Amino acid sequence: MNNKYAIGIDVGGTTTKFGIVNQEGEIVVQSRIPSNEHDFIEDFIHELFTKLQPMIKQVGGIENIVGVGMGAPNGNIYTGTIEYAPNLKWKGIIPMAELITKKFGVLARLTNDANAAAVGEMLFGCAKKMKHFITITLGTGVGSGIIIDGKIVVGHDGFAGELGHTIIRPGGRLHKSTGMRGSLESYASATGVRETAIELLTMRPDTESLLRNYTINDLTSETVYECAIQGDPIANEIFEFTGQILGESLANFVMFSSPEAIVLFGGLTKAGNLLLNPTRKHMEANLLPIFKNKVKLIFSELKESDAAILGASALVW
Amino acid sequence: MNNKYAIGIDVGGTTTKFGIVNQEGEIVVQSRIPSNEHDFIEDFIHELFTKLQPMIKQVGGIENIVGVGMGAPNGNIYTGTIEYAPNLKWKGIIPMAELITKKFGVLARLTNDANAAAVGEMLFGCAKKMKHFITITLGTGVGSGIIIDGKIVVGHDGFAGELGHTIIRPGGRLHKSTGMRGSLESYASATGVRETAIELLTMRPDTESLLRNYTINDLTSETVYECAIQGDPIANEIFEFTGQILGESLANFVMFSSPEAIVLFGGLTKAGNLLLNPTRKHMEANLLPIFKNKVKLIFSELKESDAAILGASALVW
Repeated sequence: MNNKYAIGIDVGGTTTKFGIVNQEGEIVVQSRIPSNEHDFIEDFIHELFTKLQPMIKQVGGIENIVGVGMGAPNGNIYTGTIEYAPNLKWKGIIPMAELITKKFGVLARLTNDANAAAVGEMLFGCAKKMKHFITITLGTGVGSGIIIDGKIVVGHDGFAGELGHTIIRPGGRLHKSTGMRGSLESYASATGVRETAIELLTMRPDTESLLRNYTINDLTSETVYECAIQGDPIANEIFEFTGQILGESLANFVMFSSPEAIVLFGGLTKAGNLLLNPTRKHMEANLLPIFKNKVKLIFSELKESDAAILGASALVW
Repeated sequence: MNNKYAIGIDVGGTTTKFGIVNQEGEIVVQSRIPSNEHDFIEDFIHELFTKLQPMIKQVGGIENIVGVGMGAPNGNIYTGTIEYAPNLKWKGIIPMAELITKKFGVLARLTNDANAAAVGEMLFGCAKKMKHFITITLGTGVGSGIIIDGKIVVGHDGFAGELGHTIIRPGGRLHKSTGMRGSLESYASATGVRETAIELLTMRPDTESLLRNYTINDLTSETVYECAIQGDPIANEIFEFTGQILGESLANFVMFSSPEAIVLFGGLTKAGNLLLNPTRKHMEANLLPIFKNKVKLIFSELKESDAAILGASALVW
């Protein structure tokens, strides 16, 4: 037996998921730890190392591991560092790849978490064989990975592909952590859907809505979805509005890089056609004729965390 | 003597400029013909052929010409065709590269005019040695060329890089030829500056302005510039507003591909700092911290037509 494996790690704001991946792109074993329980990065890496030991043993020991690939917010592929990630505990510039190499004794590479998911999608998901596509993660925030000519776009400094922070409503809704107004993320994320719900319910105190049965803490993108499928008009309007903002943004992205497809990931995609239909409608309405009815708008078939683990592991093959 | 040359042709809405370029990237001879005086593409190509004959003779005959490179609106590098260009007389799909090859008997290649200018800028202009930059042409319209990893971005179908048509004011100003509302081009072009002038003068009938001395036909981006440098408040406000729209759009482009520089071309750049200062201010204000104070915002040093001729000629080397 001469099987080789790669470790893929997806560092998220709350949870870090990791797995060991074989050369066929199968995650043979996986686990997770919390991301935000260690004040010091060294302690976090130590827990990761400890949790991975039995898994590494399971595939025949560290000599069968070609390396560790990681995706993390603000991860930089050029430097192997995580730089000023607003949602992580470790501040400043963290030399993550270097620390992992020292701890594990194997090659380590790091990239942006959304870019890792895009690579996973290209190698093992619904964008297999596509050379031009964009992935958009609609989760707590809005992440993105851009593939052009079969390569991830990282830009001159490694930070390209922050499409969630592009401005689609200048002067619009305040984004609490960036301080910017009118960004895609402030509307088309789970957080944004919740804010739209609160806004509409407040603006129209006399309109009946099933959403009024929930406490403000329970108003989430999930409850909005549950009310929408029961035909609640405000809940449906929320998805219509979210799809409009997302569709307008996607039209702009299409006119930038003319992708074959846009792959949507993340929690909000559970809304299915409630979100997809208005998104497609408003994307098409804002495209030049040469781009119309060409771009596939699809939901990922991979689990978001699987895509990121797979994509991260692919960094070291 | 074993010198080789390439012909570069820049097909614009009103004028077609062409030149013969040596291997050092110098235009050794150039000329121009109107673009819109021939109903049939064959007649246009015949005039081009006739005008180029003495120029070709001057460099030693067609055997010294390696090929013809062309830039044209909606020019497609994959197919060599011009497809549904709104500003050209020839409608539908024009097999330009094929027609040129037949007429001249040499290799012909075609790309989008703005892409040709970006390539010219990379090979011979102020973006020399840069691998990640974006060119924006602020002329009658707004064109763009995107370079990532030293290659022009053409997308899966050859039409990428239509940044002038991205939406920056959803529901905003109507673009008369595309029918879209709030696109960058409807504000940050010579046409857009003129429209902003008419809007502001109409909205504020009691505000004195030197611009009121001009007839409506003479209200152009040039007259606005002339009044602005004399301190006219409305004229200055027009550039401030144009720079705001442009700056917000540029911030979005930066968060897509994280370029090292944005190179501005075209008639509007004559306004110099009147345009550059508000553009820079609003670009920076809309960038995530990781992108701030990194992106060079510069004016091209090449003449716009030279850049396009040089870039087009580079297609056949």
